[in-house]
Amino acid sequence: MNKRKYWSDLVYQLTPYTPGEQPKDRLLLKLNTNENPYGPSPLVIDAINNVTGDNLRLYPDPESDLLKQALADYYNIPKSFVFVGNGSDEVLAFIFQSLLKKNLPILFPDITYSFYPTYCSLYGIQYDTISLDKNFNINLDDYLYENGGVIFPNPNAPTAIPKSLFDIEQFLKRNQNSVAVIDEAYVDFGAESAVKLIKKYDNLVITQSFSKSRSLAGLRLGCALAHEELIQALVRVKNSFNSYSVDRLGQEAGIAAIKDSSYFLKTRNAIIEAREFLVQELSKMNFKILPSAANFIFTKHNKVDAEELFNKLRDVGILVRHFNKPKRITRYLRITIGTTEEMKQLVLILKKILE
Amino acid sequence: MNKRKYWSDLVYQLTPYTPGEQPKDRLLLKLNTNENPYGPSPLVIDAINNVTGDNLRLYPDPESDLLKQALADYYNIPKSFVFVGNGSDEVLAFIFQSLLKKNLPILFPDITYSFYPTYCSLYGIQYDTISLDKNFNINLDDYLYENGGVIFPNPNAPTAIPKSLFDIEQFLKRNQNSVAVIDEAYVDFGAESAVKLIKKYDNLVITQSFSKSRSLAGLRLGCALAHEELIQALVRVKNSFNSYSVDRLGQEAGIAAIKDSSYFLKTRNAIIEAREFLVQELSKMNFKILPSAANFIFTKHNKVDAEELFNKLRDVGILVRHFNKPKRITRYLRITIGTTEEMKQLVLILKKILE
Repeated sequence: MNKRKYWSDLVYQLTPYTPGEQPKDRLLLKLNTNENPYGPSPLVIDAINNVTGDNLRLYPDPESDLLKQALADYYNIPKSFVFVGNGSDEVLAFIFQSLLKKNLPILFPDITYSFYPTYCSLYGIQYDTISLDKNFNINLDDYLYENGGVIFPNPNAPTAIPKSLFDIEQFLKRNQNSVAVIDEAYVDFGAESAVKLIKKYDNLVITQSFSKSRSLAGLRLGCALAHEELIQALVRVKNSFNSYSVDRLGQEAGIAAIKDSSYFLKTRNAIIEAREFLVQELSKMNFKILPSAANFIFTKHNKVDAEELFNKLRDVGILVRHFNKPKRITRYLRITIGTTEEMKQLVLILKKILE
Repeated sequence: MNKRKYWSDLVYQLTPYTPGEQPKDRLLLKLNTNENPYGPSPLVIDAINNVTGDNLRLYPDPESDLLKQALADYYNIPKSFVFVGNGSDEVLAFIFQSLLKKNLPILFPDITYSFYPTYCSLYGIQYDTISLDKNFNINLDDYLYENGGVIFPNPNAPTAIPKSLFDIEQFLKRNQNSVAVIDEAYVDFGAESAVKLIKKYDNLVITQSFSKSRSLAGLRLGCALAHEELIQALVRVKNSFNSYSVDRLGQEAGIAAIKDSSYFLKTRNAIIEAREFLVQELSKMNFKILPSAANFIFTKHNKVDAEELFNKLRDVGILVRHFNKPKRITRYLRITIGTTEEMKQLVLILKKILE
């Protein structure tokens, strides 16, 4: 890139994250960014409507105390173990800056959420990537050497494969000198949260998102759950960046979303059901599907090229996600799970394409 | 601070910003954080209500294109000259990281928005502070030496004193080797925006806030206006931090707020009127008031100590802002301008206190 007179040196070193396309045209099916096919709980809509008025002139609570309390109650942990931010991407950024910027490289899988290396370039953090095994599993034994921190999603993305809580605890027992971050953006769709381990392991940080299982991608809400001392580091960075990072509507919506367990369970279960339907149908059609604990699947057809399928789906208004790198995943497509009806539509169209 | 096992070194070096108190109890008058006494435009409320529904499940436009376009139209500049963020605090953070982190110290006034040194500690930026003159004015001639960048608010905070556009342009002509940032959070209340200079000076960045004159502190919206090349640096940092930093409701609310000029003018003018009323009344009561172009005044009583006044006002439920440092301003109070009715109430109570 040409030298720009006024940019800081940092700007050149960045390799910004590329989010999934957000097309402005109406699509038949938008299955590319792992959004929830169901809208948020009606109680969330009520909560936003109740707070939408003259009081928007006033700053929000900079500590988001009531939202933190709702999360603390939900997980049965102290409020001091909770941090909230403007999407889990912001929360992750604060974690990289305050807990993963060390003298040793941090470790994460070679195939994972592609924002991790971007945070490293933003904050000047060294990292090593660890290969997934031949079945695309994370093998945590491979992470057992001196490191500046470890981060991986559970389930992993874009593979959708979960780690068991047993494996995670075995790892935590043997990695006590650095922070371990488990990015649980998709955990509600079939993996087990490690939140029950945060009292026991004071180097464990869980991040979660309201964008997937709580249907609030449009509102930007995420949280970190960890021992108080780690949370304090995040608070110090947040208060040096933006005192009021979560707005009034976000705080109220978040509280309502957490409290409406029955809506959460109903929609989450419907998505799992739709996933199982899709997996079954695709299996019959010569697709290989990695075992999914997420609201998406990672799949390849045994004969047809992924990019060709991507383009043919796109031509009929169905958007899925295809990654050009790393090489090992270029034959796969990531498909977001919608409603069962939508999955039926997808299956029909795929059948036509493959005829 | 004691060494915490898992914190990065950075966390210890931080001196987080302290926002004005957001008391949870109901007050008689909340005049401490420069919020607008009027709620947002009814069109803003409509816009939020219109977008509050099932589509909150979908990510927002990561580029906030329609909001950028609304600002571009309002200021008659290209859309590529506009950047938006989650509050002008976030926008300022990106500016420090991408345009002010240089090998030379940056310059800002010794008495100014106290978040600036906090950003410097967050990003490891050296800075020199330049003393205001004896009348609390910024003298831009004092900034004319080799520097890594210059930032000041217009009007300045907490003094409320504006700089003329003429002085600003004289300065820009002579400072072309570094970026000059003018923080116009309060510009709408009586100063002149330098936005008309951004086409001419490709090192000039303007920041603005929707929290004050647009009554949207609760929603977190701010923008930067600058030459495309500077905006590109901000975009690169934003996309390395949080692709979707402005949520759906914020984007729609911002567009409606910008488009409702008549509501903006009506409420803005009412606040200026209330300010002129308050200044007149306080002048009669032995207060000295710095000339204000903001929605607050900076004032001291010629006899009564500021902290004493602060406490007495607090006792009757009126919250204003008092700064314990730097020493030169400890005798002053910063008082947010409310409605004329509220200012009448304040005057009555001050009269009783001073009796």
